[in-house]
Amino acid sequence: MTHTLYSPLDMHLHLRDSAMLQTVAPLSAQSFSGGLIMPNLVPPVSTISGVLEYQQRIKEATKNETFEPLMTLFFRSDYTREFLQQASLHVKALKLYPSGITTNSEGGVASMDVEVLRPVLQAMSDLGLVLCVHGETNGFVMDREKEFCNIYEDLASAFPKLKIIMEHITTCESVALLDKYENLYATITLHHLLITLDDVVGGMLKPHLFCKPIAKRYEDKEALLHVALQAHPKVMFGSDSAPHPISKKECCGCAAGVFTSPIALQALAELFDKHNALASLQSFVSNNAQAIYAYTPPFKEVVLVKVPYRVPNSYGDVVPMFADETLAWSIQSVR
Amino acid sequence: MTHTLYSPLDMHLHLRDSAMLQTVAPLSAQSFSGGLIMPNLVPPVSTISGVLEYQQRIKEATKNETFEPLMTLFFRSDYTREFLQQASLHVKALKLYPSGITTNSEGGVASMDVEVLRPVLQAMSDLGLVLCVHGETNGFVMDREKEFCNIYEDLASAFPKLKIIMEHITTCESVALLDKYENLYATITLHHLLITLDDVVGGMLKPHLFCKPIAKRYEDKEALLHVALQAHPKVMFGSDSAPHPISKKECCGCAAGVFTSPIALQALAELFDKHNALASLQSFVSNNAQAIYAYTPPFKEVVLVKVPYRVPNSYGDVVPMFADETLAWSIQSVR
Repeated sequence: MTHTLYSPLDMHLHLRDSAMLQTVAPLSAQSFSGGLIMPNLVPPVSTISGVLEYQQRIKEATKNETFEPLMTLFFRSDYTREFLQQASLHVKALKLYPSGITTNSEGGVASMDVEVLRPVLQAMSDLGLVLCVHGETNGFVMDREKEFCNIYEDLASAFPKLKIIMEHITTCESVALLDKYENLYATITLHHLLITLDDVVGGMLKPHLFCKPIAKRYEDKEALLHVALQAHPKVMFGSDSAPHPISKKECCGCAAGVFTSPIALQALAELFDKHNALASLQSFVSNNAQAIYAYTPPFKEVVLVKVPYRVPNSYGDVVPMFADETLAWSIQSVR
Repeated sequence: MTHTLYSPLDMHLHLRDSAMLQTVAPLSAQSFSGGLIMPNLVPPVSTISGVLEYQQRIKEATKNETFEPLMTLFFRSDYTREFLQQASLHVKALKLYPSGITTNSEGGVASMDVEVLRPVLQAMSDLGLVLCVHGETNGFVMDREKEFCNIYEDLASAFPKLKIIMEHITTCESVALLDKYENLYATITLHHLLITLDDVVGGMLKPHLFCKPIAKRYEDKEALLHVALQAHPKVMFGSDSAPHPISKKECCGCAAGVFTSPIALQALAELFDKHNALASLQSFVSNNAQAIYAYTPPFKEVVLVKVPYRVPNSYGDVVPMFADETLAWSIQSVR
């Protein structure tokens, strides 16, 4: 049994830089046709030259594969309209992080007040730039995304022509917003379709499943699965694949992030197959994103086959999700 | 500024066995006068000879200090009344674990049905043996203790003369039961008075703060603090200090347990002082337990002093809570 995907896209991807970039970028490029590259480097990618240089480093790291890195800028509330106009020639989106909310987000915005953000957001709306948001407050860890929903509603109402992507959503409350505001969209990760907080802290503590936003309750996972499996037109696959070296995961203060790039398509095929939803997978991993971003990716044909795949225990010093476990589907060929 | 405690007791203590026992038992014995020793060794302590031999090993490991190990038996639903009568000469309590709910609990009870447990519980009630319970269901990790409250209510109603200790409570629901049933009591740990789930997974992931039951919400912590700081007569300090070697904490599947024995009194003094509640500390760490267990511990006088104490980064290969941090209070002398 095989299933062919065309030009799969990973619309939320951390490729890091330097040695880590060299390790992980080829792994994404092996199976994906492109991806939306997160800008939270140290320091963040917040200049046009920074974007272009980072894009060039990614292209060099993936030069043996067809892979288009769609670039983003790190959102700052003091960008000028002139700067954004220039930037719009090179980036698809700006990624907004509330300050300090996740890895390398220290330079994020201090206030989510619509009036503070208005000049930049209005310019983005006018220029057709997409706003990608890490939507968490700094409240109690299980409530942060739910509490942010009001802010999503304020943004969506205030800028009805701005496309707003609720990144890596994890709650039923976020899912409900998709049908409430025309201009709200979402990415969903692989891991949030598979795990709950029980998998992270319910048995042994699993640092390699620790991520931000943290995995939530069963009813949240079900809500995410519901829209993913039907490929609701407003949701896209975005792995949020976030590599950290093992020394930053198995330690006294473990960094947030699940590394899934090299196993994402196999695991998605297994999941969608299990739910008799393989017919939706093409839309979830590519077509919806193409429509939302008005983007045509380079051609890539990935043939998946229902043959067991043993996941390596690590890629360099990065431990993937399902390390040393067996998935039901493999990648048979890519061209 | 000093504060003197007499015969402090740790009414929920894991001393393990073999090399770990040699490492941790002297640390408890340095500052505590005694403790209720948990029976979840591998295999569990479930025979009278097992109790006596374990007690002897503890005494040997603590022979330079005044420290009385109060022994417990691992609860099994097939103990006979005759066995329990014999056991009551040597143990204060039986510790009931639902099967598989925490470290080394695989041999615990499969059913919490009152009728299944009735013969043993009625015999315990008649013999004056205390029932200590790890009260969690196998539901969603944040709901497990709350869901267990019904079972506490069933047990308390069915055996009104049986003293039931809700061990290491973590929720406001459990606190509320203290005033609802005359025969329900509780132990409270140090760490559950100090942390919430935010401290475990809200920033970096902190394996050394990972425990079962998992730390809950702010309102839960406040409810625990409320009864601890007033030394509610039905609550006792029980550290649930649970040492694991660093290799079992900073790894891909971290074991549950926070190691607090050697820093517990200093941290409690700091906490109670901060809340102007030092006057309650004697009851919380000793007098309440003496009344509940009808027990008079050996004399020990611990003088605490408000002088900074730098917590070691480890004791052997065990990392304590507050490793490499500074507490506001020290132990000045023990006699």
